[in-house]
Amino acid sequence: MHVSFEQNASIDVGAEIQRNIDSFFDQRIEIAKGLGGQYGALWQAARQASEGGKKLRPALVVSVYRGFAGNEITHAVSTATAFELLHTAFLMHDDVIDQDTVRRGRLNIVGSFAEVAAGRGASNADALLWGQASAILAGDLLIQAAQSTLARLPISENQRLALLDLFDHCVFVTAAGELADVAFATGAESPDLTDVLAMAEQKTASYSFEGPLQAGAILADAGPDALKVLGEFGRLVGTAFQLRDDILGVFGDEQVTGKSVVSDLRAGKITALVAYALRSNHADDLKQLLARAEGVDADGDVVRGILEQCGARIFVEGLIADHVHRAVDLLETPALPASLQITLRDVARRATERLR
Amino acid sequence: MHVSFEQNASIDVGAEIQRNIDSFFDQRIEIAKGLGGQYGALWQAARQASEGGKKLRPALVVSVYRGFAGNEITHAVSTATAFELLHTAFLMHDDVIDQDTVRRGRLNIVGSFAEVAAGRGASNADALLWGQASAILAGDLLIQAAQSTLARLPISENQRLALLDLFDHCVFVTAAGELADVAFATGAESPDLTDVLAMAEQKTASYSFEGPLQAGAILADAGPDALKVLGEFGRLVGTAFQLRDDILGVFGDEQVTGKSVVSDLRAGKITALVAYALRSNHADDLKQLLARAEGVDADGDVVRGILEQCGARIFVEGLIADHVHRAVDLLETPALPASLQITLRDVARRATERLR
Repeated sequence: MHVSFEQNASIDVGAEIQRNIDSFFDQRIEIAKGLGGQYGALWQAARQASEGGKKLRPALVVSVYRGFAGNEITHAVSTATAFELLHTAFLMHDDVIDQDTVRRGRLNIVGSFAEVAAGRGASNADALLWGQASAILAGDLLIQAAQSTLARLPISENQRLALLDLFDHCVFVTAAGELADVAFATGAESPDLTDVLAMAEQKTASYSFEGPLQAGAILADAGPDALKVLGEFGRLVGTAFQLRDDILGVFGDEQVTGKSVVSDLRAGKITALVAYALRSNHADDLKQLLARAEGVDADGDVVRGILEQCGARIFVEGLIADHVHRAVDLLETPALPASLQITLRDVARRATERLR
Repeated sequence: MHVSFEQNASIDVGAEIQRNIDSFFDQRIEIAKGLGGQYGALWQAARQASEGGKKLRPALVVSVYRGFAGNEITHAVSTATAFELLHTAFLMHDDVIDQDTVRRGRLNIVGSFAEVAAGRGASNADALLWGQASAILAGDLLIQAAQSTLARLPISENQRLALLDLFDHCVFVTAAGELADVAFATGAESPDLTDVLAMAEQKTASYSFEGPLQAGAILADAGPDALKVLGEFGRLVGTAFQLRDDILGVFGDEQVTGKSVVSDLRAGKITALVAYALRSNHADDLKQLLARAEGVDADGDVVRGILEQCGARIFVEGLIADHVHRAVDLLETPALPASLQITLRDVARRATERLR
């Protein structure tokens, strides 16, 4: 998806955010080099990890801030940067947890550091350990830096405490969702569809939608009614966004998504698609496939066939449409300026649309 | 070691800090339960991980704050809590990185969560993955909570920014030290003794001594001269503290340290002891032992024998004495109140002394 930064903009905010992120990494890379060559390389890799995303979260912060006529754009830019750093940190730790070595079609920190170590003659085990240690530390650094960026804003104490509360909440809820995701995949819990939807809301909607939207509102001194609506809207659209991601993870074009259509299945991930299929009369077929998927390449067409035939795809498409519909309905409230209603309607649509 | 909180105390600050930590975890556990049973268990485990330590970092914050006659003890208590949470977070991620399942003589989060999963019938690989994911998330949560605690203090903007700078610095430097530690152990770098001492200063002295000491001074509005001395003192004593830890890791009583005397060696850790021995005429013996140590139990007595005979133990004892000596010399300055000089002399001695 693409959410434009440029509505009614006199300055190029997207470029301003990118400059902010670049300057953050430039400074850190420079100081890190003085603490050891590997550390400089780690910060270089962290910068690369932050590149190539859609910068969705920054766009949401800025859209809401502008929608409420906020006039200190540097505050919105810093806050947008903080959410983007948090996002990058979560991706880093998510990849360690999921034992992935590829992200956005190229080697992630785990993969690239392991590759260098292996090239130096390290054992496979040592190389992977080195890659994972590096990614854990890089994620720690970005979580801390994200919050530090927020805590330094020259805003009122009320705003600062509200922003810190929001950030606490986002990290707390996201960790709950991540843990549930792993619990379901490793069999620590057997979820029903409600559990899977709650997990999607926790691990994605909270820090990707609810947080950035409400942060923009807090900075612009919007009232409690606006915060409430933005929270509900963010949770609904964010959940739909995750459901769309689940569908793309199976039915999407690998060339476009950069992700194998069977990687979720192989990792034992219980997405809404899988949860639905496991309660259908195709459950046994899917279970056999899941069991086989461990270690060997499952056939993408077979997977897709089952998820189509049992009705899982249609069902999840329906869930997405329902979430978006409810979200858009919420926007018709005097708590939100009319122009922001239009922007957010567009966000709801673009964040959840089928890929071309 | 034991650093007393109680010098000239009218209230029991140690108990106050413990109450603060307890209340932090009580609140989180309660909210977490509402987000899923596993998440409640994770916060319970995080609380357990925070128990049983020496609370060294909190004691340092409070000692300096009192030394400079700070009179808002609740600020020192919150800051002390923040450093203790950061410490617990680092231990959690350190254990994942080192693939340890035991800490302080009992199962850590990785070990206890993996044990539950295995008992439920999960494969060893899935059980370990579940344990490590849980520990990564728990560490993330505590890093974030530590800094949030600092950012919320009702202090002047100058103090807040100084405290945030200090915290940024501690996390940044500690990560550099952790990375170097792993780089040395996995062969990504071949360190000399200077590198190993720099690593010890980075991974331990910064957040365990320099940070807490300077934080207490910032809160009490001590001047730049005091901050400078406390920083240098902290780096020296903190490095000596790590060197003592290295010696105890090999020569200590396993019953007292809760740690196998060959675990560092088996992990390939390059401590100052090992770095020295690798440049002595016993290097070949040690290399053979290190190669053998992977997978099998090396004989503690043989290890100790080599490290004694090559002079590594005497050398590192000398390094500790030298660091402590230089640290104590720094204390004789008008920048520090006389009573604080006495307290910190005691800190330097106790933090680095041979165990009975």
